[in-house]
Amino acid sequence: MPTGTPPPDLQEFLRRPNPCVIATIRPDGDLHTAATWYLWQDDGTVLVNMDASRVRLGHMRADPRVALTILDEHAWYSHVSLIGRVREIRADPELADIDRLATHYTGKPYRDRNRDSWTAIVDVTRWHSWGELARS
Amino acid sequence: MPTGTPPPDLQEFLRRPNPCVIATIRPDGDLHTAATWYLWQDDGTVLVNMDASRVRLGHMRADPRVALTILDEHAWYSHVSLIGRVREIRADPELADIDRLATHYTGKPYRDRNRDSWTAIVDVTRWHSWGELARS
Repeated sequence: MPTGTPPPDLQEFLRRPNPCVIATIRPDGDLHTAATWYLWQDDGTVLVNMDASRVRLGHMRADPRVALTILDEHAWYSHVSLIGRVREIRADPELADIDRLATHYTGKPYRDRNRDSWTAIVDVTRWHSWGELARS
Repeated sequence: MPTGTPPPDLQEFLRRPNPCVIATIRPDGDLHTAATWYLWQDDGTVLVNMDASRVRLGHMRADPRVALTILDEHAWYSHVSLIGRVREIRADPELADIDRLATHYTGKPYRDRNRDSWTAIVDVTRWHSWGELARS
């Protein structure tokens, strides 16, 4: 499984508003997965954002290990998976990050202006890809 | 997060050939996620199948903890997530299980008749759902 950052053509794919599932670890050691919006950033990190009520925010605070699988919307078995660690969790009081995400996915700022919005930045340590996106 | 088996209407959703991502734990403790076919079975277990070369098969052999997120193909933010444990890993020498999966997803038996095919059965312990599939 390759270490470091995916190659440029996979980064192009990652920049699209694709379906994504993120895995975190619960305090009891069980795994947790959920669908999420994400942003691939130019520095090779991944930005995700959560309302304060989302349990995975607490998981990330307690344990930085995460993995994400990003699916090709039109042929979902083709996918890129990323393994990483949460580097930073920060408040998003002006909703700047969730608005970036919402605009990326829906073309409009986020609807709920009272969201208690939190951002996590993920350092990617490994990746793999499959199907049409497979790279040796 | 509810324990036990999802309610009947979510089981109806789970019976469709939906996109799915499964999370396992690597020997180094990092998380691993990948897209997968799955079958929701009448006894409330989940069947997945892997070629012997898939790293997640080794993960499951070493640690039974898994989580799966099943996405609505037409509105992927609507999803059902399952937390569970691998109960059984068994060889699939006649390709019966991978053929069930392939027929469910593609309408045809699996193409590669030389596959070293392995099946895992997952006991579901908790679930949650979101979006149009959200249930209190």
